[in-house]
Amino acid sequence: MISPTAEYALRAVVAIAQAGGDAIVTPNIAVTTKVPAGYLAKVLQTLRKAGLVDSKRGLGGGFTLAKPADKVSVLDVVKAVEPIKRIEQCPLDIETHGTNLCPLHKRLDEAYELVEQTFASVTIAELLDVPGRSTPLCQKDQVIALNPPSSETQ
Amino acid sequence: MISPTAEYALRAVVAIAQAGGDAIVTPNIAVTTKVPAGYLAKVLQTLRKAGLVDSKRGLGGGFTLAKPADKVSVLDVVKAVEPIKRIEQCPLDIETHGTNLCPLHKRLDEAYELVEQTFASVTIAELLDVPGRSTPLCQKDQVIALNPPSSETQ
Repeated sequence: MISPTAEYALRAVVAIAQAGGDAIVTPNIAVTTKVPAGYLAKVLQTLRKAGLVDSKRGLGGGFTLAKPADKVSVLDVVKAVEPIKRIEQCPLDIETHGTNLCPLHKRLDEAYELVEQTFASVTIAELLDVPGRSTPLCQKDQVIALNPPSSETQ
Repeated sequence: MISPTAEYALRAVVAIAQAGGDAIVTPNIAVTTKVPAGYLAKVLQTLRKAGLVDSKRGLGGGFTLAKPADKVSVLDVVKAVEPIKRIEQCPLDIETHGTNLCPLHKRLDEAYELVEQTFASVTIAELLDVPGRSTPLCQKDQVIALNPPSSETQ
C-alpha cells in the first residue's frame, strides 16, 4: 500500500543504519537494497533534504544516518518521500460536506490513520534488532562483500 | 492509500445501497459518485462479476446490490476490484529470506493487515446509518433529482 518510492526509501535507511555509523556509498546501498542506482540517488537526496541522512563526498564519504536509528520512525521515512494522503475533506467536493466527512471517507481515513500510527510506533533501530528473523535486506555474502571482516560483528 | 478504482467502487456500491432496493442506472450512479461514466461502467462490471451487484437491462433496469448491505463489507468491495497487496515473501527476492520476512517487510505487512481488518469490520449498511454525519456521497439537490419525492424518506 505504500508507494515503491517509500519502500525504497525505507530499504535505503535500513541499509544505512545497518552500516552502524560507517559511511556507505550509493552503489553499495543499491546492491543491498536492490534499488536501481539512479532511482536510489534521487531517493537519497530527498532523505538528505528531509534531514534524515547526511552525505559526505570524497574518500571515506557516503551516507550516514543524521540521527540515531532509535530516533527515526518508519513514518518519518515515509513522510519524507511520499506522505500517506489523509482524507481531510470530501474527495467528491460536495460543498455541504466540506471537512465533515461522510462515513465512507471517515472510515477510510481512520484506516489510514491506523497505518500512520503503526508506522510511527516502529523505529529503524527496532527493525535491525529482531532476534530469530531474517536480517533486514542483506544476504550473508553481500554483508561480507560490503564490510571488512573486522566490522562484521556490528 | 487505496487505489482510485477501489475508491470509485466503494462510492458506486454506496450509491447503489442508498437507492434502497430500487435499480439505479449508470448515468445516475455517475452523477452521485462523480466518477466518469466510462470508468464507472468498467468498475460496475467488475463488481457484477464478483457477485456484489446485479444488473438488469431495459426499462426499470439498472444496478442493485446482490446481497443485503449489511452482508457486504468495505473489504469485499476493495477485494473485488483491487485487493490490498499483502507481502507474502521477500520483495527483494533474497533467497535466504523467502517467506520468513525481514522485520521491515513484516511490519509493513502488519500495517496492511490492520487495514484489511478495519475494512472487513465495516459493512456498507453501517456507512449509510451514521446519525449526525454527512450523507454518503449525495448532495441534497442530487437526491431530489434522482428520486421522486415519495421515496425521499428512505
